[in-house]
Amino acid sequence: RTRVTQEHFEEAKNKLSSLKEDPGNDVKLKIYALFKQATHGPCDTPKPGMLDFINKAKWDSWKSLGSMTQEEARQRYCDLIGSLVAAEGGAAAQAPARSSAGGRTYDSLLVSTQDDITTIVLNRPAKKNAITTQMYEEIIEALQHAARDHSVVTVFTGAGDFYCSGNDLSNFTKIPEGGAEQMAKAGGELLRRYVKAFIDFPKPLVAVVNGPAVGISVTVMGMFDLVYATESVCATFHTPFSQLGQSPEGCSSYTFPRIMGLGKANEMLLFNKKLTAFQACQLGLVTEVFPDSSFHAEVWSRLKNYAKLPPNSLALSKQLIRSVEKERLHAVNDAEVDRLIERWMSDECFNAVMSFFQAKAKL
Amino acid sequence: RTRVTQEHFEEAKNKLSSLKEDPGNDVKLKIYALFKQATHGPCDTPKPGMLDFINKAKWDSWKSLGSMTQEEARQRYCDLIGSLVAAEGGAAAQAPARSSAGGRTYDSLLVSTQDDITTIVLNRPAKKNAITTQMYEEIIEALQHAARDHSVVTVFTGAGDFYCSGNDLSNFTKIPEGGAEQMAKAGGELLRRYVKAFIDFPKPLVAVVNGPAVGISVTVMGMFDLVYATESVCATFHTPFSQLGQSPEGCSSYTFPRIMGLGKANEMLLFNKKLTAFQACQLGLVTEVFPDSSFHAEVWSRLKNYAKLPPNSLALSKQLIRSVEKERLHAVNDAEVDRLIERWMSDECFNAVMSFFQAKAKL
Amino acid sequence: RTRVTQEHFEEAKNKLSSLKEDPGNDVKLKIYALFKQATHGPCDTPKPGMLDFINKAKWDSWKSLGSMTQEEARQRYCDLIGSLVAAEGGAAAQAPARSSAGGRTYDSLLVSTQDDITTIVLNRPAKKNAITTQMYEEIIEALQHAARDHSVVTVFTGAGDFYCSGNDLSNFTKIPEGGAEQMAKAGGELLRRYVKAFIDFPKPLVAVVNGPAVGISVTVMGMFDLVYATESVCATFHTPFSQLGQSPEGCSSYTFPRIMGLGKANEMLLFNKKLTAFQACQLGLVTEVFPDSSFHAEVWSRLKNYAKLPPNSLALSKQLIRSVEKERLHAVNDAEVDRLIERWMSDECFNAVMSFFQAKAKL
Repeated sequence: RTRVTQEHFEEAKNKLSSLKEDPGNDVKLKIYALFKQATHGPCDTPKPGMLDFINKAKWDSWKSLGSMTQEEARQRYCDLIGSLVAAEGGAAAQAPARSSAGGRTYDSLLVSTQDDITTIVLNRPAKKNAITTQMYEEIIEALQHAARDHSVVTVFTGAGDFYCSGNDLSNFTKIPEGGAEQMAKAGGELLRRYVKAFIDFPKPLVAVVNGPAVGISVTVMGMFDLVYATESVCATFHTPFSQLGQSPEGCSSYTFPRIMGLGKANEMLLFNKKLTAFQACQLGLVTEVFPDSSFHAEVWSRLKNYAKLPPNSLALSKQLIRSVEKERLHAVNDAEVDRLIERWMSDECFNAVMSFFQAKAKL
Repeated sequence: RTRVTQEHFEEAKNKLSSLKEDPGNDVKLKIYALFKQATHGPCDTPKPGMLDFINKAKWDSWKSLGSMTQEEARQRYCDLIGSLVAAEGGAAAQAPARSSAGGRTYDSLLVSTQDDITTIVLNRPAKKNAITTQMYEEIIEALQHAARDHSVVTVFTGAGDFYCSGNDLSNFTKIPEGGAEQMAKAGGELLRRYVKAFIDFPKPLVAVVNGPAVGISVTVMGMFDLVYATESVCATFHTPFSQLGQSPEGCSSYTFPRIMGLGKANEMLLFNKKLTAFQACQLGLVTEVFPDSSFHAEVWSRLKNYAKLPPNSLALSKQLIRSVEKERLHAVNDAEVDRLIERWMSDECFNAVMSFFQAKAKL
Repeated sequence: RTRVTQEHFEEAKNKLSSLKEDPGNDVKLKIYALFKQATHGPCDTPKPGMLDFINKAKWDSWKSLGSMTQEEARQRYCDLIGSLVAAEGGAAAQAPARSSAGGRTYDSLLVSTQDDITTIVLNRPAKKNAITTQMYEEIIEALQHAARDHSVVTVFTGAGDFYCSGNDLSNFTKIPEGGAEQMAKAGGELLRRYVKAFIDFPKPLVAVVNGPAVGISVTVMGMFDLVYATESVCATFHTPFSQLGQSPEGCSSYTFPRIMGLGKANEMLLFNKKLTAFQACQLGLVTEVFPDSSFHAEVWSRLKNYAKLPPNSLALSKQLIRSVEKERLHAVNDAEVDRLIERWMSDECFNAVMSFFQAKAKL
């Protein structure tokens, strides 16, 4: 093992910020601890209070390094980050994360067109297809492209075991210079454009729900023209807004009560009830549930037949159905986003999200 | 037994009008008969026609007193009214009908706040919790209070075996000086304010349906955020409007078709179909049905958990969902009330309500 | 057999255009062939390409007559048309197609009023009650009459095994002088007035679905106050719009998503899914399904009871429920008709309808 120079250390620090995937809380605490140990030496600050969860977790991690030398910490820091970078490269080698559709490549999506069907695959399986800020932008772009391409039907699905775990809450942890208010406003504008892309989408849009769906991946389903789900016990539908101090988006405050009635919608949107695919189908959120074993074969065979129907008739019929409530959906989107911006700046929301991170980190 | 003076008789007459509870048709016919016998003597008017139900019933009752002396009739009149007054006092002694919430006491409601839940209990069990004019006013006031108190969730339920038997039809029998038109208009204004209180209620509102629900207690359910019902065969849902020559209220002409589809809504609102809790749940009017044995335990355990969620998130999410159709609901309420005022002044409605009373009195 | 004069031949040609019922594609191809053979002689034109279905079918039919003489062809032509005319007359003799209601007689409907119920029977059983241009006009008139008569409830049902097979596609084959554009516009205006008659109908309107229902007979069901269907396997609900290159009408682009949720509505309106009565009932399009054996007895017994309810209360309650979305329904009707007029003039639609005729003719 060669001695780690300050230069190597700086290089590792830079590589850290270029990682595409969030390595998770455990790894991040380890990185924090090694960095402190390398730059400051053994932990010598007072132990934070029991209720100061995050600082307590950081302190515990740093403290656990004991009297490790700064050089040893630098070495381990560089090794750890090197392994993370290599892992990302390796994954990319096995299954190229970039896909081409009309010349456009995406970091977080696989987009392809076949049999007159454009398929958009959420492709962050290691992160349960959680949607980062960049991924929101990519999905908007992919939808805009699919709207103009020659395909007849557009399909959304997820890579791996998850359909989509919703908004990547790490989006909330990268506080920009303008502070929480600027973050909330920027997040709101992005959300508004994201939901708008679904409201305005001009062709039949189908969700192929291959696993658990959470948050915004569930709420926008009310605007999908078909939602096909596997009956696997894993394919659940969950919108835990109030638990996170937030409020409904994706036009769900309008579509869900219309789809399933006010009471059932409130159980989901206000009281965090998680539905199975079968329950979601009974309530009309899911159009049809298929046995896990035949899910893909059945669904794709059906979609291929649909894509053979007269394309203009399909698109114009879909637009006709949408036109009745398009203006209303835009107004609902605006109202939901405005309310969420307020929520994101509230103490109630901040505390609820923090509790979530702490529960996740099992501290 | 002392001799009844004219003074005693006048006193009894005055007490009669101060009775809080309607003594029912049988008793009222007896009171009528004794009054006629006491003031006029034995029945000597011609027998009304078979189809003149009410006058026939009154005549039958008077005639049944035969040759009873006027003094005896006065005595029995005073005794009967005395027993009714005593019964009301006695009932009040056994279970105090007045309850305190924020310093306010109600005659017909029990209102209390515990575990961040404000509970409004309709408390006229002897009258199946039928809603009198005064009770409408008290419920409006209780809702306005609950909107401002520190509770997170507000619950509606009924004392005794009934949830609520709807509008107390005796409201129709107290014709004021201004006649039927004034009664109809005043009733309409009260109804408008009553329904408005539900449209504007800013927190999650839950119906805990413990028994049969009739009329306006059913129609406003479309605006409750959750409706939990016992699966007891007794918990039925009934809106017999056309049978009474009336028309839907409580915004049900808007909410019911949206909840259960036009056909099923019409079966209830036009054609008087009575639903079981299970059927109401399948149609989305009821959110969930619980076994009678575990109904209270299950529901209250769940509600207590709901009341622990971030309060602002819950209230703002509920308001967001409501905001989409608030204006529409107010317009619907106005239209329904206007139509009902017309209905109440129509012969068709008058005759249908009279038939109802006659059927009830088994004449 | 007497020799057929040119006069007889001209007479037969004229009788052909006065036939009330479309004799079907097979017969029409035979008529075409005999006419060509009679006026031109044996088929001597080049065989059309495999994909030129209609001309190929005509050519095949003509060719099949071989070297038949022109005189023989004239004779057979006159015989065939004579038998068609006689068959229509005979059918009329067995069961008079004209029925009287308020002095008005209809060619394609049986309209009668009994027990305060006006019943409109679609009466083209040999054509599966497909709706011709004239029949649309008659139904509009029958509805306008029922709106003003003294009946309490109005019922729609079909004669024979079908409820209604929808728009008679032969409406598309009678191209007027103004060409396809004029036909599309005239058809659109007729459709607009037809659907308007259902939107504005002021009394409870009930569909008694006795067999398969297709196209516009299904789409307008979203505006019926009750839909009762036999559970017979034959009573299916089918709206194959995109298959015919068309788009939804009858306000179904608005009512269907509200009745059954967007996904299930799209399966019908975009993807041509055919529902059984039981499925349609689960989705709320059908109000109740009855065993085939007791269908008529049960339904009519129930309707007779409904018709005894206070008529004004029923009509005003229905109007109240409708009023909430009447303006919206008219706007939807306009948008649907405008889109359909465009569709009818499109090549996509033309080709899809032609394919349908060819598939039907099993060519």
